[in-house]
Amino acid sequence: MSRGRLEAFSDGVIAVVITIMVLSLHPPAGSSLHDLRPLVPKLLVYLLSFVFVAIYWVNHHHLMQVVERVNGLTLWANAHLLFWLSLTPVAAAWLGPHLGDSAPVATYGVVLLGTGIAYGILTRILVAAHGPDSRIAMAVGRDAKGNLSLVTYVVAIAVAPVVPWLSVGLYVAVALVWFIPDRRIEHVLTPRSDS
Amino acid sequence: MSRGRLEAFSDGVIAVVITIMVLSLHPPAGSSLHDLRPLVPKLLVYLLSFVFVAIYWVNHHHLMQVVERVNGLTLWANAHLLFWLSLTPVAAAWLGPHLGDSAPVATYGVVLLGTGIAYGILTRILVAAHGPDSRIAMAVGRDAKGNLSLVTYVVAIAVAPVVPWLSVGLYVAVALVWFIPDRRIEHVLTPRSDS
Amino acid sequence: MSRGRLEAFSDGVIAVVITIMVLSLHPPAGSSLHDLRPLVPKLLVYLLSFVFVAIYWVNHHHLMQVVERVNGLTLWANAHLLFWLSLTPVAAAWLGPHLGDSAPVATYGVVLLGTGIAYGILTRILVAAHGPDSRIAMAVGRDAKGNLSLVTYVVAIAVAPVVPWLSVGLYVAVALVWFIPDRRIEHVLTPRSDS
Amino acid sequence: MSRGRLEAFSDGVIAVVITIMVLSLHPPAGSSLHDLRPLVPKLLVYLLSFVFVAIYWVNHHHLMQVVERVNGLTLWANAHLLFWLSLTPVAAAWLGPHLGDSAPVATYGVVLLGTGIAYGILTRILVAAHGPDSRIAMAVGRDAKGNLSLVTYVVAIAVAPVVPWLSVGLYVAVALVWFIPDRRIEHVLTPRSDS
Repeated sequence: MSRGRLEAFSDGVIAVVITIMVLSLHPPAGSSLHDLRPLVPKLLVYLLSFVFVAIYWVNHHHLMQVVERVNGLTLWANAHLLFWLSLTPVAAAWLGPHLGDSAPVATYGVVLLGTGIAYGILTRILVAAHGPDSRIAMAVGRDAKGNLSLVTYVVAIAVAPVVPWLSVGLYVAVALVWFIPDRRIEHVLTPRSDS
Repeated sequence: MSRGRLEAFSDGVIAVVITIMVLSLHPPAGSSLHDLRPLVPKLLVYLLSFVFVAIYWVNHHHLMQVVERVNGLTLWANAHLLFWLSLTPVAAAWLGPHLGDSAPVATYGVVLLGTGIAYGILTRILVAAHGPDSRIAMAVGRDAKGNLSLVTYVVAIAVAPVVPWLSVGLYVAVALVWFIPDRRIEHVLTPRSDS
Repeated sequence: MSRGRLEAFSDGVIAVVITIMVLSLHPPAGSSLHDLRPLVPKLLVYLLSFVFVAIYWVNHHHLMQVVERVNGLTLWANAHLLFWLSLTPVAAAWLGPHLGDSAPVATYGVVLLGTGIAYGILTRILVAAHGPDSRIAMAVGRDAKGNLSLVTYVVAIAVAPVVPWLSVGLYVAVALVWFIPDRRIEHVLTPRSDS
Repeated sequence: MSRGRLEAFSDGVIAVVITIMVLSLHPPAGSSLHDLRPLVPKLLVYLLSFVFVAIYWVNHHHLMQVVERVNGLTLWANAHLLFWLSLTPVAAAWLGPHLGDSAPVATYGVVLLGTGIAYGILTRILVAAHGPDSRIAMAVGRDAKGNLSLVTYVVAIAVAPVVPWLSVGLYVAVALVWFIPDRRIEHVLTPRSDS
């Protein structure tokens, strides 16, 4: 089964997810610069969410480069990932005007955690399907960065009822760490193109 | 005529359908966890609808693997399927806050039934175009699971005015049955890749 | 310049256009079957608009089959077509609850007319770029059906202030005529695949 | 790393951006032609924004034709461009009903400027990755038109608090200049197809 349509469908869903998030940035009713002020936190949350979704797109892109086989289980693990990604716009729309409130901050973290777990499941299913000596197994490795992200999300969710701003800081920190594209897979890909 | 653009267009429509459904999950006005409570049934309906649309994407993906010819009739049968799928977000948005009410439950079933019939018509047109000995004819076979689903939808619609929750249970049951990807077509495909 | 990305972009825009139209079908506030009644005319307008956009997708699909060269002018003629198609959701959203009113009926016709003219321009630019003996020139021919549609739209717009229902009937009639896929291009394609 | 999926994802995002802009064209509540009047400025802003986004799509299409290598940095430079493009619908929705007001006019210019800078960064990263003698370096050249556009946006933003209509005129002027597709890259491509 080809991976082409899986990529095309994922691209479509991620493209819509990343774009409809902007619908929660309602233009102000007034027409002065001052009216833009309530949009600022929403815009920052949109930027953070855009970066998170873009990170998943970039990593999904890298991951699929080393995938050779796609089976039914992979399709569903991928749909599971898309489901969590599709919740990002709602979580972001709630967080935007409530950036310092515990419940929206924790909820945003739950969506990040769910997405991260879904990506981990997809990765493990692909590694299992390709075997321990496959390029994808080498590329994924011990997945320390992925596991650390999940732990950070759990900490951020736990901390949100007490110090919500610390949780937001942790989300930003994870985004910054992932901003650097997944070198592991690029390392596996590059020597191959040299040989 | 190539099947590539038919797949691309279907992927695009299904990707948008599956994603704009999330627009009916309006974030709560308040900022406490308690404010999330009315979102719970909507989220469950979103999950069920996401699974239904994803099932159609997965089955469409499997079906197209064994398609060799696409004619004008196929394009319209496919557009007919996409029309019914595009009604899912409205039906889901009505069902979300009225999970125990007869009319929204029955309406949701009508959209499921229409989508199922449209998929059946597309299948039959493709089988007719490829002949009774084609791989697609073998893959589709007697389509017992598809027919059983249609009967279940009819029963659920009939039951909705009396016991709406039973209808919802029937929808969930059908989704669970289809959750398992279409083995018939995988069976036809797998020996081919071995030979 | 390849036509692949032109098709992909057009598919993307048309897929979003055809799907976001459904956003104007707001679910009723109440939960009885009776509450569905105001949705019926909107649903009919949605169906008509879905068919119109699907006709353009099918014809665009057919047209691109015989295109060999894409230049800058073609890209803009195609963007012009997509612009008019993108106005369909607004025109449909206005027509839905005002199916018997002159202004919304005439406005819907203006959008249909603009889309038809844009498609005609795209066709002529492609024919000019390929020469009078090209397959696309033969496939398009005198374009009697296209010209007749434009005349019908003009008549419908002129009639709308007096008998809006007649205009709606004319729109339905044009849709039915185009529902049959573009045989001219299929005729040009079919002998070629035989030889 | 292939450029195919980068193009597909960009096409998806741009297709959604260009189409959801139309969602801010709410149909009028009334049903007379007179009710359409407040829609006219919104429609003009939609047309201008559609042209701007279409220009980026056409230029992106041309640019990618001469790209041979895509690395992680390119993916992020492209995501950065898509981020600014995705802000166009909000900026346009604010400008629509406030076409003569300083703040919305200046904000629209800031989004145009950000998009222009992001496109310039993407271009420079691609040129750096391909070397000074590459086809893409020749195609981009000194990028006088791009730089002039950025200067014009800065002037328009500075002028907006005083004469907002002049700024709108400058935006229209830039759009008209770019409307002509990027001849530089077509020049580089054309001799190649002759040789």
